[in-house]
Amino acid sequence: MNPTSTAPSTTPVELLEEQVRAAQTAFEQARDVTTHQRAQWLEAIATALENHAEELMPLAQADTHLDTGRLQGELKRSVFQLRLFADEILRGEHLGATIDHEDPSWGMGPRPDLRRVSVPLGVVGVFGASNFPFAFSVIGGDSASALAAGCAVVHKIHDGHRTLALRTGEIVTEALENAGAPAGLFSTVTGLPAAEALVDHPLVQAIGFTGSVRGGRALFDRACARPVPIPFFGELGSMNPVFVTEKAWSTRRDDILTGYTNASTMGMGQFCTKPGLMFVPEFDVEEVTEVLRGAIGAKELAPLLNPRLREGFDAALFSVCGLSSVDVLVAGDDAEAPHPTVLISTAQAVREDPTVLEEEMFGPATVMIQYRSQDELEELASLLGGQLTSTIQAEADEQLTGLVNVLREKSGRVLWNGWPTGVTVSYAQFHGGPYPATTSATTSVGTAAIGRFMRPVAYQTFPDAQLPPALQEANPWAITRRVDGRWESADA
Amino acid sequence: MNPTSTAPSTTPVELLEEQVRAAQTAFEQARDVTTHQRAQWLEAIATALENHAEELMPLAQADTHLDTGRLQGELKRSVFQLRLFADEILRGEHLGATIDHEDPSWGMGPRPDLRRVSVPLGVVGVFGASNFPFAFSVIGGDSASALAAGCAVVHKIHDGHRTLALRTGEIVTEALENAGAPAGLFSTVTGLPAAEALVDHPLVQAIGFTGSVRGGRALFDRACARPVPIPFFGELGSMNPVFVTEKAWSTRRDDILTGYTNASTMGMGQFCTKPGLMFVPEFDVEEVTEVLRGAIGAKELAPLLNPRLREGFDAALFSVCGLSSVDVLVAGDDAEAPHPTVLISTAQAVREDPTVLEEEMFGPATVMIQYRSQDELEELASLLGGQLTSTIQAEADEQLTGLVNVLREKSGRVLWNGWPTGVTVSYAQFHGGPYPATTSATTSVGTAAIGRFMRPVAYQTFPDAQLPPALQEANPWAITRRVDGRWESADA
Repeated sequence: MNPTSTAPSTTPVELLEEQVRAAQTAFEQARDVTTHQRAQWLEAIATALENHAEELMPLAQADTHLDTGRLQGELKRSVFQLRLFADEILRGEHLGATIDHEDPSWGMGPRPDLRRVSVPLGVVGVFGASNFPFAFSVIGGDSASALAAGCAVVHKIHDGHRTLALRTGEIVTEALENAGAPAGLFSTVTGLPAAEALVDHPLVQAIGFTGSVRGGRALFDRACARPVPIPFFGELGSMNPVFVTEKAWSTRRDDILTGYTNASTMGMGQFCTKPGLMFVPEFDVEEVTEVLRGAIGAKELAPLLNPRLREGFDAALFSVCGLSSVDVLVAGDDAEAPHPTVLISTAQAVREDPTVLEEEMFGPATVMIQYRSQDELEELASLLGGQLTSTIQAEADEQLTGLVNVLREKSGRVLWNGWPTGVTVSYAQFHGGPYPATTSATTSVGTAAIGRFMRPVAYQTFPDAQLPPALQEANPWAITRRVDGRWESADA
Repeated sequence: MNPTSTAPSTTPVELLEEQVRAAQTAFEQARDVTTHQRAQWLEAIATALENHAEELMPLAQADTHLDTGRLQGELKRSVFQLRLFADEILRGEHLGATIDHEDPSWGMGPRPDLRRVSVPLGVVGVFGASNFPFAFSVIGGDSASALAAGCAVVHKIHDGHRTLALRTGEIVTEALENAGAPAGLFSTVTGLPAAEALVDHPLVQAIGFTGSVRGGRALFDRACARPVPIPFFGELGSMNPVFVTEKAWSTRRDDILTGYTNASTMGMGQFCTKPGLMFVPEFDVEEVTEVLRGAIGAKELAPLLNPRLREGFDAALFSVCGLSSVDVLVAGDDAEAPHPTVLISTAQAVREDPTVLEEEMFGPATVMIQYRSQDELEELASLLGGQLTSTIQAEADEQLTGLVNVLREKSGRVLWNGWPTGVTVSYAQFHGGPYPATTSATTSVGTAAIGRFMRPVAYQTFPDAQLPPALQEANPWAITRRVDGRWESADA
């Protein structure tokens, strides 16, 4: 692989220091605006992204090799996300407003008037991911949720799509400025020294990160080792295993193989939810190879996102191919736009050496693992580490309680007869999972992501007029609140 | 101080290993019981504590030197807490059940059926605090909330009340056994080697801790450094500052001094919410000393909880007294049951050396800090570290938005004209705060504490019958759920 020819410019640490201080000032100016005002800022960013779509698309394509359809879908997703979050904060769901009125007869002794609301953390550092230049980058899920929470954001640009990211950052900053938000509420930095200084900075209260296990763990350790440790919401790595029952395999083998191929080669396999492992009954190698070749042949190929990522993929593929437990079923190649590789192993082999269950190949390569008896599935599942997703392919009438329970312990999301790519942004979404999938028990997708960047505060026996609006008796923001243990809808 | 004469017996690490494995087995057996069943287990523990109150009281008194009234109140609190948590899980509030039905017209593209529920983490290690032998110990807030969440608990007994704790542990274990809970769901260990092995154990999924900044930070670092890091919910230290306005001081100075003395000497000042600092206008030393002496004279004195704690208190008091910024206003003594000490400083002095704002004296000693102008309060507040509580003493018509906002950033709970001791257990309670008050953004008191020991899982396109009951369409547990963005009460 050729290294990138341009030495990337980096933000001097002194400038980072200025930006963080400006972000803190902006946070202090903005933290008490109404949710209505804050929703307007999110809407202003969404509109600006739409208005600049034509300008951004070619930059995105040049930086990432992703096709227009995919990039347009991703931008649409990012815009939708901003509007959904705007709607969510107008409802006040992120505030968790809870009111306990004074109660002289409370069971453990008289209870004072006590009211709790969540407040924004402050300045948040967000690290962009390489693989989603819109949805997990400059104004992706982490930035959108931090801004929705009421935080200020300093975004560390991913070198893989620097040109796009710098321009996106300008558009966001300008949109916020035009909408009347305080200067400094959002800014971007580049380069490792600024990145490390961002994690270390005393005014930074949390980090959002999407990237590799190695890089993420190093920054997690750094965040924990601070004199004042801060939460590190890191999404690191996932194998996203698929478990196919005997019945499903015998009923619709070819559909499953095609679906698996589509999901695992989507975006050239560079999705955090790419299914990288599939457990299937023992099969006829010739027949399966033919189906896989057909499915793979129908895919359009592209170069990987950037040279560094390609280097990592090649190294991982080489390493997994070198395992004695693994054989090649469908060989890829080392073209600039490489053909996907499908490897094969057996339950017996991974039991003896489970390495193949842990080594993520970020790109177009997967492993199919043959089992002899469906009874083995639960045990094989228990050998896995933490996952963003796990998928079951089964018939609707099959009872798989044991397997579902093991997968629940291992995963943030469990699917039945779907494919894990295509993570919808909604109220119930959970995009997270036990380590190493993430470094926390939170989601980085969906409205619940907003709460990561807030902390609750209780107010005791406060005069009503001195309370934040969300907690005042008259409920001036008309939000849903829990009052004396029961939920009260403003619109009820 | 004399060190304790008995060398405490400790749990061998091999035995801890067995207990954790038994806890894991019990967790797996118990994690899918109905909330009704789990509520019965909590109720069984509550009833057992009531039934054994007469037996436990003398053990508690012998171990802690606390008076019967206080200990009875604390036991009542612990029993109430178990019952409130039982009621809370019956309501299903801890599950956060959220349902997004399939929606082909969802703004970012068709949405699959997606349902989220929180599940228990697994085996939890809980470290008992020295100062609340019931409420923050064997079956205190951390254990009660972990059991309510559906976790198994291995409790590290605090050496300060070993006899009481061992007996309490037996009572809890027996109550659970009699109620049909699986063996191993709750157990206790003693000693440092077992404590460290507990934090390190791969099957342990979270730690609850109440104790010192030094000990807590060491264990926090240990939890973060594991190959698979786990959340460490630590409550460490807090100064609990009080801010008195000029108006309040001139209106009701003596009441404030008496309230302050009562709160700061309650339980011989060994409360995590003891007000340890009070900012007041410059005052007449003779008058104030006389009021303080009167208030202190009305208090019954007792020895501190244990020799190690006394040693720590004496050292901290010695250290603070040695600061050039500090003078003695009311001198205490070094009797076995020591008279409380009140120190005095000035805004100017703490601005030059803020050490006195950080050094917690866990016992009967506090510092009063005189300011010249009320305008200084906001600036003085900004010099503080993270706090469990901050208190404002003011008249109801005073506008103190700036001060309230600074205190909100620094504190988990802000009080207006109350005293921070006496932490009610309720829905809105928040007992936590920025570091070093705690190591997380969660509460260790109140129903919200249950959620610490759970993590969300999403189920995508699952057959209804394979979903957990909380997510099934018919809502068989009749719990409040968020459906397509709107809250639906089962009883609505």
